[in-house]
Amino acid sequence: MSEQLTHLNDKGQANMVDVTDKTVTSRQARAIGYIEMSANALALIKQGEHKKGDVFAVARIAGIQAAKKCSDLIPLCHPLMLTKVNVDFSINETESRVYVETLCKLSGQTGVEMEALTACSVACLTLYDMCKAVDKHMRIGGIEVLAKSGGKSGDWQKASNEAVT
Amino acid sequence: MSEQLTHLNDKGQANMVDVTDKTVTSRQARAIGYIEMSANALALIKQGEHKKGDVFAVARIAGIQAAKKCSDLIPLCHPLMLTKVNVDFSINETESRVYVETLCKLSGQTGVEMEALTACSVACLTLYDMCKAVDKHMRIGGIEVLAKSGGKSGDWQKASNEAVT
Amino acid sequence: MSEQLTHLNDKGQANMVDVTDKTVTSRQARAIGYIEMSANALALIKQGEHKKGDVFAVARIAGIQAAKKCSDLIPLCHPLMLTKVNVDFSINETESRVYVETLCKLSGQTGVEMEALTACSVACLTLYDMCKAVDKHMRIGGIEVLAKSGGKSGDWQKASNEAVT
Amino acid sequence: MSEQLTHLNDKGQANMVDVTDKTVTSRQARAIGYIEMSANALALIKQGEHKKGDVFAVARIAGIQAAKKCSDLIPLCHPLMLTKVNVDFSINETESRVYVETLCKLSGQTGVEMEALTACSVACLTLYDMCKAVDKHMRIGGIEVLAKSGGKSGDWQKASNEAVT
Amino acid sequence: MSEQLTHLNDKGQANMVDVTDKTVTSRQARAIGYIEMSANALALIKQGEHKKGDVFAVARIAGIQAAKKCSDLIPLCHPLMLTKVNVDFSINETESRVYVETLCKLSGQTGVEMEALTACSVACLTLYDMCKAVDKHMRIGGIEVLAKSGGKSGDWQKASNEAVT
Amino acid sequence: MSEQLTHLNDKGQANMVDVTDKTVTSRQARAIGYIEMSANALALIKQGEHKKGDVFAVARIAGIQAAKKCSDLIPLCHPLMLTKVNVDFSINETESRVYVETLCKLSGQTGVEMEALTACSVACLTLYDMCKAVDKHMRIGGIEVLAKSGGKSGDWQKASNEAVT
Repeated sequence: MSEQLTHLNDKGQANMVDVTDKTVTSRQARAIGYIEMSANALALIKQGEHKKGDVFAVARIAGIQAAKKCSDLIPLCHPLMLTKVNVDFSINETESRVYVETLCKLSGQTGVEMEALTACSVACLTLYDMCKAVDKHMRIGGIEVLAKSGGKSGDWQKASNEAVT
Repeated sequence: MSEQLTHLNDKGQANMVDVTDKTVTSRQARAIGYIEMSANALALIKQGEHKKGDVFAVARIAGIQAAKKCSDLIPLCHPLMLTKVNVDFSINETESRVYVETLCKLSGQTGVEMEALTACSVACLTLYDMCKAVDKHMRIGGIEVLAKSGGKSGDWQKASNEAVT
Repeated sequence: MSEQLTHLNDKGQANMVDVTDKTVTSRQARAIGYIEMSANALALIKQGEHKKGDVFAVARIAGIQAAKKCSDLIPLCHPLMLTKVNVDFSINETESRVYVETLCKLSGQTGVEMEALTACSVACLTLYDMCKAVDKHMRIGGIEVLAKSGGKSGDWQKASNEAVT
Repeated sequence: MSEQLTHLNDKGQANMVDVTDKTVTSRQARAIGYIEMSANALALIKQGEHKKGDVFAVARIAGIQAAKKCSDLIPLCHPLMLTKVNVDFSINETESRVYVETLCKLSGQTGVEMEALTACSVACLTLYDMCKAVDKHMRIGGIEVLAKSGGKSGDWQKASNEAVT
Repeated sequence: MSEQLTHLNDKGQANMVDVTDKTVTSRQARAIGYIEMSANALALIKQGEHKKGDVFAVARIAGIQAAKKCSDLIPLCHPLMLTKVNVDFSINETESRVYVETLCKLSGQTGVEMEALTACSVACLTLYDMCKAVDKHMRIGGIEVLAKSGGKSGDWQKASNEAVT
Repeated sequence: MSEQLTHLNDKGQANMVDVTDKTVTSRQARAIGYIEMSANALALIKQGEHKKGDVFAVARIAGIQAAKKCSDLIPLCHPLMLTKVNVDFSINETESRVYVETLCKLSGQTGVEMEALTACSVACLTLYDMCKAVDKHMRIGGIEVLAKSGGKSGDWQKASNEAVT
């Protein structure tokens, strides 16, 4: 772990990390997040999915497209060429949440956790948009990295007792 | 409140709501969210801010720019012309969180809560990016609408007993 | 009808038409187009749709997003704020084609036929992308305006004997 | 040729193909398409070109820029770095058409036919935009791949008896 | 004239000016700038233009497109809908410069000088790009506003003794 | 040095240079430029910086983001993946100017001077935007390349007697 913010230089100014000499390796990252909503809104999503509804398809495309736009959204991110983006949804009725899990891969010089997190956030926002007419109290949360691999710092994954809450 | 998902038509297909005949009114929305991090990462942000660091400035700009890009990110959002975007930060040391609060305004035909939520999400993601070298366990959460005004459905704000958690 | 190309000035240079003083009216346009493919590829699309496949959902979102990006793609188009975009698909097995029909609406100073045509083209390209692994001989065609209304030139629609071919 | 739609997974969901382990090879693709218009509109284009008109220059730039934006337009396309884009025009007076032929090249992990087709489509749309004031019955068609090379599936070109129609 | 920077709030933070309540008026702005190059490079541009070269056409389109992207480039600019953009070129052989003059118009709540300046800058950069293989010492300069009209502050134009230098 | 404009083909048409077979090397470029303003406007910037103002932070982010967007702004530029962008500011009170110096790096097939120049131009435009309420006579100038390295043409830097003026 670094001891200081790599995205600030010693004058405290915004600093895009220089990755020119970093090795090109195969990298991937997985992220998760959820949107919590009323039982009624959740039921409408389930019902929509039952009759071939486009709800998850729309949010999946939004997530994939957002991953590709990551360096345009996050100022100090490097542009990179994703080789794979995956966005999956699962409904948890007990918690009244839709969980979104994303995977990003590339062969490159920087990690892809920001891309995975961005895909997850925008997929959640898209679900919010599609349900906002029936529920004004929805909340997006629990957005974090589950695992990453590749690069100098090696493989990492969240310890199993760090439950997603 | 609507009884069904306005963003699906009766065949379950993605549906951009027709706002052609909606009245142009002055509208605004406020949203909130946070990023939770280690005491160490939070201390580095505070320290960065103390010596004129750019941390919040970078996240603020990212949030403002993201609000303008909302209809490019959320597939069924209408393009619109924001007249004001505000992004504010506050550090809560007890909770080890940075809170992000956003405001979007326009004079138009649709509400601006998606723009406020998008600004908030991208500002949080930008903070994540700037701190990820010192903390791999950060989590973004509590992203929700605080209040909105304007439009047919009138003014609305979250009840005070609905604490931000 | 104009007697000359309005998008060239008298020196033959590219010219963005000045619409500053045009009246704001309610305008809409409908366009159509198709992608022709092998019976095998068409069967796979139908089969995908039968089991809740995302094929048309993906192409619909691509079409809607492209309509919003029209002024970024077509150099002399004016930026505008669409109030409605619709993208529909129908399979014609006799012709071995998928037809795409689009509708764009706004209240503004310029017509929206370029937006409707762009949505149609990009929806067809997206179908091409999704089927290209099974058919290398697909062809996109028949992209044209079906009807437009609003603006100085008034309502117009293609005569009924001008069959879509 | 694949036996199934590679862009849907086994649940029928949109699937971005994983190209992480594909070899980087030199790839290129050529595409063609046309816009058909009235003799009058075609004459105005020719006349514009005679006096240094910008018509084809504008459509060429639009096509080149669209090729670069392909992964932003087509949801399941991978971002890539084109090393060459070419857009050429030829007037066919017998058919009253302008033909657009495009070439895209790169050294990468995925084919570039979608980039070539996108460049062709957007160049045609730009010609449509520039001529729409003099002809409301134009039609864009015949958009297809002429040849591609590089990658696992090797070189391919449309058989000569498959006339462009 | 304001006494302070309107784009900083009283804490010195970036501030997007709130234009929600500003009147919609017809506004326009003109800007100018130049690129200075070797006599040889200038001669090649002239020669290119003589044989229908696309040099100015490419730079004109780049300038027009950049004007439309202004709020995406300049963080605190409001999104707006330009109704007209014009980009003109003139060669000054004595000074060995190409001058670029731009005009932007809209009916809206904010001035358009940033759009005119952005169009001018990007047109100059595009000329630079097209000539850089023959001259490494080119310099872009003299980018300023010539005149603006509309809005609360009324019409303004640079005094005639303020020569463009 | 080339003897002709590489961005025009022999018919004078816009030509994106084919870099498919160019070697991937480590490349970098530095550019400079300035914005000249009244003593009053300059004093307000200095004062803003003194109290942690965001002026330079906003312009820095705008410059970095613009560098990444270069191929979207300059039509014949190749898309590329920058590995480092730096944007620095210095106040020259004698000349009443803010100087902007930029650095871009990548490992790739084309030079990055256009990216460095674009970052510089957009950072200057952003400063203009932030100060325009207090000074209508600002002027952006002196935008040029200071040095570049990497690629076939080898290292180059502006001779020391070619003062920035």
